[in-house]
Amino acid sequence: MQEIDYYGYRGLVKEKLMKINARVGDRIRVVNVDKVFEGRLMPREALYGDRPFVVIKLDNGYNIGVRVTDTTIIEKIGSFEKAVPAPSKPLVQKSDLPRVIMLSTGGTIVSKVDYETGAVKPALSTEELLEWIPEIANIAYVEAKEILRIFSEDMAPRLWSKIAEEAYKHMIDGYDGIVIAHGTDTMGYTAAALAFAIRNKRVPIVLVGAQRSSDRPSTDSAFNLTAAFLTAAKAPFAESVVVMHGETGDAYALAHRGTKVRKMHTSRRDAFQSINERPLAIVYPREGKIKVVNKIIEHRDKSKEPILKNRFDEKVILLKVYPGIDPEIIEVLIDKGYHGIVLEGTGLGHTPQWLIPTIKRAVEEGIAVVMTSQCLFGRIDMYVYSTGRKLLTAGVIPGEDMLPETAYVKLSWILGYTRDLKEVRKLMLSNIAGEINYRLTVNLYPRWPL
Amino acid sequence: MQEIDYYGYRGLVKEKLMKINARVGDRIRVVNVDKVFEGRLMPREALYGDRPFVVIKLDNGYNIGVRVTDTTIIEKIGSFEKAVPAPSKPLVQKSDLPRVIMLSTGGTIVSKVDYETGAVKPALSTEELLEWIPEIANIAYVEAKEILRIFSEDMAPRLWSKIAEEAYKHMIDGYDGIVIAHGTDTMGYTAAALAFAIRNKRVPIVLVGAQRSSDRPSTDSAFNLTAAFLTAAKAPFAESVVVMHGETGDAYALAHRGTKVRKMHTSRRDAFQSINERPLAIVYPREGKIKVVNKIIEHRDKSKEPILKNRFDEKVILLKVYPGIDPEIIEVLIDKGYHGIVLEGTGLGHTPQWLIPTIKRAVEEGIAVVMTSQCLFGRIDMYVYSTGRKLLTAGVIPGEDMLPETAYVKLSWILGYTRDLKEVRKLMLSNIAGEINYRLTVNLYPRWPL
Repeated sequence: MQEIDYYGYRGLVKEKLMKINARVGDRIRVVNVDKVFEGRLMPREALYGDRPFVVIKLDNGYNIGVRVTDTTIIEKIGSFEKAVPAPSKPLVQKSDLPRVIMLSTGGTIVSKVDYETGAVKPALSTEELLEWIPEIANIAYVEAKEILRIFSEDMAPRLWSKIAEEAYKHMIDGYDGIVIAHGTDTMGYTAAALAFAIRNKRVPIVLVGAQRSSDRPSTDSAFNLTAAFLTAAKAPFAESVVVMHGETGDAYALAHRGTKVRKMHTSRRDAFQSINERPLAIVYPREGKIKVVNKIIEHRDKSKEPILKNRFDEKVILLKVYPGIDPEIIEVLIDKGYHGIVLEGTGLGHTPQWLIPTIKRAVEEGIAVVMTSQCLFGRIDMYVYSTGRKLLTAGVIPGEDMLPETAYVKLSWILGYTRDLKEVRKLMLSNIAGEINYRLTVNLYPRWPL
Repeated sequence: MQEIDYYGYRGLVKEKLMKINARVGDRIRVVNVDKVFEGRLMPREALYGDRPFVVIKLDNGYNIGVRVTDTTIIEKIGSFEKAVPAPSKPLVQKSDLPRVIMLSTGGTIVSKVDYETGAVKPALSTEELLEWIPEIANIAYVEAKEILRIFSEDMAPRLWSKIAEEAYKHMIDGYDGIVIAHGTDTMGYTAAALAFAIRNKRVPIVLVGAQRSSDRPSTDSAFNLTAAFLTAAKAPFAESVVVMHGETGDAYALAHRGTKVRKMHTSRRDAFQSINERPLAIVYPREGKIKVVNKIIEHRDKSKEPILKNRFDEKVILLKVYPGIDPEIIEVLIDKGYHGIVLEGTGLGHTPQWLIPTIKRAVEEGIAVVMTSQCLFGRIDMYVYSTGRKLLTAGVIPGEDMLPETAYVKLSWILGYTRDLKEVRKLMLSNIAGEINYRLTVNLYPRWPL
């Protein structure tokens, strides 16, 4: 039978902690022959629970693992309750500042480790937010509301609908900007969804996340949130954007167009980058400045009448093409009643020849098939090679320079309103929310280090 | 009934060309009221066949379309045969140079428009190659052999086996380097396949392609081929590499490790880039120089005994994860008897929670499930968030910093030899051909233009 964890600890460490009834957040002292450490007891990742280390948070904020042997002495020198700081004086907000509401959906950005349970707890209320980052009270009149509490990997089209509805409601209510706190895994998809689902926006919708949680010294939460509030309050554009670190330091953030942004790194702070498009703006949260760097923006205008179109069809697949792909996979999608397929093809927009008859059958059955490229950078051009021309003849809709992820969101959105393939084609080929860049994008290619 | 094309032309243009019995490659004069053009008749893309233009290649090498109206006069002023240049003196090769063989598989790199048929024809023979790019005779004693004639989008695991067998045979035969001419669409996949399929290489295997065909003024064929022959003849490493333009000019090419390279742009000459790894070398074809820039290389050594392990399992899928993905898709793969699934997950290596029970079932049924990230850059770390830990518990193998495409090739290769999941896991987590970079890769991130 598997041993039951004690805050993730097992074996010797668990035994020693239980003996002194230490709870996570308690101040403890760990005495070894050579060294003594003091700090707050932290929970242990269950996967590491068998390793003979106890994790404590030192007063300088860093977590360390201290080796525990039979001779190690662990003492409790302070309890969790005593460590809670006295509540600070409530901050008085300035009512003449732009009104910005943060709708939180979950994710690292709103997570703080709860020392009581060891669990990660979303920080939600306006008070908590202002206590955490008081400087945003100088940027905007701040409110916060929790609308979801999920990891962003659990995001789904029906939740895009809900977020869009909330954002729309608050836009109509007269807010000057909306911040959406979101996990980073799928933030690009949601940014694209909000770009399509609210037409004729009055004010910006700013998605923001964090790559490192707020209990880590390298956290980017406060910097990103400040940049996001600044963008929501003051940016001249009324688009769905992602605002995140622009480089690894704290010099600036970037505001990326929601339909052109992609998470390009698993862990770097500047993971989000624009593809085939310039960022809309460089955001300097410390200086309170926004420098617009893209000539084409949809302008902020509170007299506009936003329109909510937040239906998304869930019977759409994003399918990557690779050598040896079996047509059977597409056959199955046809049989299962899918409505749309976004192919992430090779090069200029190709699939193996042997897939084309099945793709043709899919189109004949009324399924919208859209071509994008796994190269990510550059534009689909299906006229150059015969494979591309055959795919066009089979009825495939070329996805221009759209990101595969954005094409997926867009097709799901279009199919929420029409399944007429002519209409779907027309809409897929129209630039609705900046997802197609007709200008020359070939120079918008990053430079690799040598 | 559909009209039959005349070299792709239809309607008025076809009529006028047939009247003078003009064949593609013939020299023609097109006389309009305002202007006269002379050049060689070119074939027309069938999709444009109805447009009233005739395409000619001017003497400066550019192709133009000249409008044809009822009053346009088209004259034939020279026939194709007369234009053929006198055969040049056969070039005498230097037998003291390294022996390099080019195995061509097809693709733009070996394509020249055949003016007789209008078709694109692979240039294959040693003589044709040397006539086209005489300077490579100063680099190597050159031979050429056609082993396949396909577009690279039609590449498949069983063809990787064939290419590997040919490359192995010629390595054993004592060649000093092997060039594989390949279409660019799936060249990265084949480069990875050859990295795994021949163990203990003696000499380099250099994949090379072209982004622009050799009848276009902007062609990169000759530059890339020269760089590839130079690398095959002289590079100090014995790895499977991709050699292509390093930037848009003709200053240098880059040799990328086959397991770490990816086509990142649909059309730029420098589309191929290393991900999470430095290139192995900068190649200067004009100066005949190779500058190695990666400290870790597998060295060229003709005393080594290469081992051919060229089995690939075709029952493997590369599956991209996206918001709303239906577990049903994985259920189907289980039921269809798939042996391996490479997930292109979100962020550090996640899927939606609702996928986990199905993934667990897949593993229980003996299917190897490997996690990679759609971010491309950075490393999988499934210990940070609970979703990752749950996926690990379900039996998912974390793909480190491997490219999704490389993980797909590697899993297909491993499953060609064993379906024992413990063994598969061990091999997937071992660095076999440079596909895993254990060093810090966080700084190998390109810089986006601002």
